[in-house]
Amino acid sequence: MTEGKTITCRAAVVWKANEPFVIEQIEVDPPKAGEVRVKIVSTGICFSDVSASTGKILGVQFPIILGHEASAIVESIGEGVESVGVGDHVLPLFLPQCNRCRVCKDKNANSCLEFMGSQVKGVMSDGTSRFRCRGETLYTFVGCSTFTEYSVISEINLAKINPEAPMKEAALISCGISTGYGAAINSAGVKENSTCAVWGLGTLGLSTIMGCKKAGAKTIIGIDIIPEKFKLAAEMGCTDFVNPSELSVPIEQYLMEKYGGAIEYTFECIGRIQTMKQAFDCCAIGNGVCVLIGVAGLTDNLNISPGQFLAGKTLKGTLYGGYKSRDAVPKLVDELMNGKLKVDKFITHTMKLDDINEGFDLLKAGKSIRTILNL
Amino acid sequence: MTEGKTITCRAAVVWKANEPFVIEQIEVDPPKAGEVRVKIVSTGICFSDVSASTGKILGVQFPIILGHEASAIVESIGEGVESVGVGDHVLPLFLPQCNRCRVCKDKNANSCLEFMGSQVKGVMSDGTSRFRCRGETLYTFVGCSTFTEYSVISEINLAKINPEAPMKEAALISCGISTGYGAAINSAGVKENSTCAVWGLGTLGLSTIMGCKKAGAKTIIGIDIIPEKFKLAAEMGCTDFVNPSELSVPIEQYLMEKYGGAIEYTFECIGRIQTMKQAFDCCAIGNGVCVLIGVAGLTDNLNISPGQFLAGKTLKGTLYGGYKSRDAVPKLVDELMNGKLKVDKFITHTMKLDDINEGFDLLKAGKSIRTILNL
Repeated sequence: MTEGKTITCRAAVVWKANEPFVIEQIEVDPPKAGEVRVKIVSTGICFSDVSASTGKILGVQFPIILGHEASAIVESIGEGVESVGVGDHVLPLFLPQCNRCRVCKDKNANSCLEFMGSQVKGVMSDGTSRFRCRGETLYTFVGCSTFTEYSVISEINLAKINPEAPMKEAALISCGISTGYGAAINSAGVKENSTCAVWGLGTLGLSTIMGCKKAGAKTIIGIDIIPEKFKLAAEMGCTDFVNPSELSVPIEQYLMEKYGGAIEYTFECIGRIQTMKQAFDCCAIGNGVCVLIGVAGLTDNLNISPGQFLAGKTLKGTLYGGYKSRDAVPKLVDELMNGKLKVDKFITHTMKLDDINEGFDLLKAGKSIRTILNL
Repeated sequence: MTEGKTITCRAAVVWKANEPFVIEQIEVDPPKAGEVRVKIVSTGICFSDVSASTGKILGVQFPIILGHEASAIVESIGEGVESVGVGDHVLPLFLPQCNRCRVCKDKNANSCLEFMGSQVKGVMSDGTSRFRCRGETLYTFVGCSTFTEYSVISEINLAKINPEAPMKEAALISCGISTGYGAAINSAGVKENSTCAVWGLGTLGLSTIMGCKKAGAKTIIGIDIIPEKFKLAAEMGCTDFVNPSELSVPIEQYLMEKYGGAIEYTFECIGRIQTMKQAFDCCAIGNGVCVLIGVAGLTDNLNISPGQFLAGKTLKGTLYGGYKSRDAVPKLVDELMNGKLKVDKFITHTMKLDDINEGFDLLKAGKSIRTILNL
């Protein structure tokens, strides 16, 4: 029985910005009120983890345990926790759903204010951490921290899922798949027979394409400078491909000429200012919607002519695909089990925690879609 | 009978950017196919006319006949015109509704592509003009040109209205009232019991407030540096007032502290980059919608941190309040006649065409809301 006791386990720690992960023995405190201690089963390497490891994401402080996309099993629960119990299968959710804040009470919004409070600052809601290593306190990453055998997560950041769901695939529902899929269905509200364009064919882009297809889009344009990614994109529903590095004209001009300015929905799934601007510039006058999904750097700024808004364009972003996280995730896991979400196609590599640096290098080099670490 | 003949009449011409209007005798050609020649009855001075007179609006060329907000009576019709006949009361619409283009076919969009084609370039759809003065061709302003006794306007830029509607008040439905009112109701989709903030309490701002109230907003914050405007804003439904020049802290900080970051809808009704940024920065995290209504300068750029979009904010613009112009205007005129739109309150000054320069000076000095010129 480990309940109520500090657990000593292995974790991948980033001690300083831009340094590699170091596998360490860490101490994980028992959960406090409203918290849950979980044993991580599988965890994916997401591009947000890469960005965070460079210190360029809001509130990230070092040393830290990164990782936020995972599947887990409840080890013990803190006082007052009711929605999950010991042994339950759960998914950590970087976006909480407290059901008490102003945003949670709006049925069309999902960016729970608890996210912008303590969680984005790298601590639990009481301002403290549950992780220690070599006498130092470790910061938490967006309420999750999953590159560790055990983690402590708030109840409002956990979704209980069907215990028969495959844990390796389910991990991807915890972040990447839901974000892109929902961005198309909820945030953009893609309509039947529409034309969509997606910048970046990683996990976000591919799941966005899956969402566009589910919503009935007729033409789905995939844009990436790595042509090897086009095959998988086609399996997800992508109909047209563009490699900007092979074009003799700027991509804005190419798309305008080929699609007559009628791309209703554009999605930026990379997190670069330049491609965000392209995506906005290329969405249709009159009714174009551009959804930003990729996470830009803290000091990045987007420079836009306001006349484009008067011409009928809308610019929005998405966190967790516009889904209310705890409500939606169990249903998305059901879609996974029914074969409606092709999650297994995203998993290009499976590794152990010890290989985490290799997994990061593959993602940074564009050589993997999702690497799953089995703990 | 003037049908089929060139009409010589009086008009206010701007010969060069930033020069005052000159009352001239001009020649107005008969309407070509799909066009209608109208006798202008009343025309309002809108801030877009001021911007256009400086040459800072897309496509404006000189010499030009400005003016776009008006009521008129059909003098003669060109070949193929079916929706209006001689003697009909009509409102010129700077935003056409062709019902043939991609945007018109989208039931949720209104920025008819004909607007972005020839009309914004200052000519009729065949690339020519119907106006001449002193041997020179005069440009048309956004398909309308109403600072003249007679004008030629495309059928797709005219709405036939109830002949019993008061023409002086109806002129305001042609632009200012519809734009702000619709921005709140259609473009923002203001919800009941919400909190709204409106930058700029001119015609656009006041009609936006009227729309927010109609949609059931609970708190409507009016922001202007001219406190004399607050009285009329209160009559339109404004509940709270802020004069930024009287604050000891930046307005962003003031609004954040007073309303706890919960302003769901913000509207920029001025056309300045600085206030556009304020409006976006001040809309609520999680579900805030910022609607740009004011027209910025051609070279203006908005500089925004993309993280705000991921935090759940949406930025959009509105042209003609999101209304499909020809469908909506006759109904809005009915609302005017039923007393639901308090249009008369907007008219602070009534003048003759000869006084147009005085009317412009009043608007630029913030001393008028709407000046109506009766022709």
